[in-house]
Amino acid sequence: MSHTLYIVGFGPGNYEHMTQKAIDVMKQVDVIVGYTTYVEIVKEYFPNQNYKTTPMRKETERCIFAIEEVEKGNDVALISSGDSGIYGMAGIALQLVQERKSNIQVEVVSGVTAASVAASVLGAPLMHDFAVISLSDLMTPLPLIMKRVECAAMGDMIVCFYNPRSKKRNDYIIEAAKKMLLHQKGSIPVGIVRHAGRPEEESFLTTLEELANFDAWKEEQKNKVDMFSMVIVGNSTTYVKDGKMITPRGYKIS
Amino acid sequence: MSHTLYIVGFGPGNYEHMTQKAIDVMKQVDVIVGYTTYVEIVKEYFPNQNYKTTPMRKETERCIFAIEEVEKGNDVALISSGDSGIYGMAGIALQLVQERKSNIQVEVVSGVTAASVAASVLGAPLMHDFAVISLSDLMTPLPLIMKRVECAAMGDMIVCFYNPRSKKRNDYIIEAAKKMLLHQKGSIPVGIVRHAGRPEEESFLTTLEELANFDAWKEEQKNKVDMFSMVIVGNSTTYVKDGKMITPRGYKIS
Repeated sequence: MSHTLYIVGFGPGNYEHMTQKAIDVMKQVDVIVGYTTYVEIVKEYFPNQNYKTTPMRKETERCIFAIEEVEKGNDVALISSGDSGIYGMAGIALQLVQERKSNIQVEVVSGVTAASVAASVLGAPLMHDFAVISLSDLMTPLPLIMKRVECAAMGDMIVCFYNPRSKKRNDYIIEAAKKMLLHQKGSIPVGIVRHAGRPEEESFLTTLEELANFDAWKEEQKNKVDMFSMVIVGNSTTYVKDGKMITPRGYKIS
Repeated sequence: MSHTLYIVGFGPGNYEHMTQKAIDVMKQVDVIVGYTTYVEIVKEYFPNQNYKTTPMRKETERCIFAIEEVEKGNDVALISSGDSGIYGMAGIALQLVQERKSNIQVEVVSGVTAASVAASVLGAPLMHDFAVISLSDLMTPLPLIMKRVECAAMGDMIVCFYNPRSKKRNDYIIEAAKKMLLHQKGSIPVGIVRHAGRPEEESFLTTLEELANFDAWKEEQKNKVDMFSMVIVGNSTTYVKDGKMITPRGYKIS
């Protein structure tokens, strides 16, 4: 009987944001494969499972290991945070299965993506059309990323920035904010959530103008924008009231 | 003690895509409030709960009812499919709570959004930056929607169309495809999933050029594009292989 490679998104990392399917799969498979940090998170909830960790940025090796385990007759969960189908492992895993002409079954198990959880922390910023853009240029040329940012702003779309800043990419968020300012007002609200849905979760609100001025922020505040953060820039109708960031959908409320 | 209004996204509608938190909340609240169709879905899993249904398009009334129930001392789940924070009830509920200066607690409980589930059915189309655009013009002027579609195509973003077609909006998907063709090739893959994640789920692949030619489709095929469908248009790198729609992220695979 053919065995299955489950490509599982486990959401932000706490048990309560996992889907029932992700939980069932992680409980039932023979091996759980993932990047060290992800395995540490999941191990807490499923301590008796077999785990295989591989280092960061070794995505190809990790997938091949997982595929080989399935070919040996195991059911395997290849895990990542958020939704495995959004900037996740689903793509490369499917590509490698096809390239090997492997006859294993593959199933992508969706999870709650970081934009959803960050939005729920901030209020309701995603009631309208939005763009999801990663500021990591490991896989995408920077000019294309910035073109997308500008196009999103031109269309007055809310923008969710994944991977907004790393040590090597200190300035991209500033450049992105400046691109948006070519089409949007500086007063547009910006919500920043770090470790959304995890115990260390913290969030704060700022504006697009302030984001463009990121260099002048205090170091402590700057540190809240990193690879664990989600930056959500509103559209022209987004506002902040009572600490909540809201993009109204247009219902008549009174 | 202050009671809580939970604004719950229950995902596509099957139990396995619900988050643990959504399940716990729906099991524990005093009342579950929702649009008739949503309540019918959820009732199957939590048959012993108290339900209050309100008709479609009565969003304001539904929210006020839910808020009043909380003010009376009940914990209430206001439910919707997908993620309550993406085109969901979170915005209007927060707006109404603020307008009433109600001191109830509000918690947005994220769910798996339709784009995630549709993507998992198709393969891995969302490995790269994407835009989420609703083709419903009930709340948004059509020219703004079409501007967003064109901007997304200009930025070579994948596009997820929510609410792609209704009886009254037969042509919007054609207009959207034509806008995209101003910037994208006709050969770009398009994946269409109806009832993603539900027992009736069906999906098929086409191209942007074919989508622009929607009028010439057979009636049976046309009917697969409606308010229960998600249309995902790839970017310039998206391809179809072995029936899977994949947008490569750029990892070196061999």
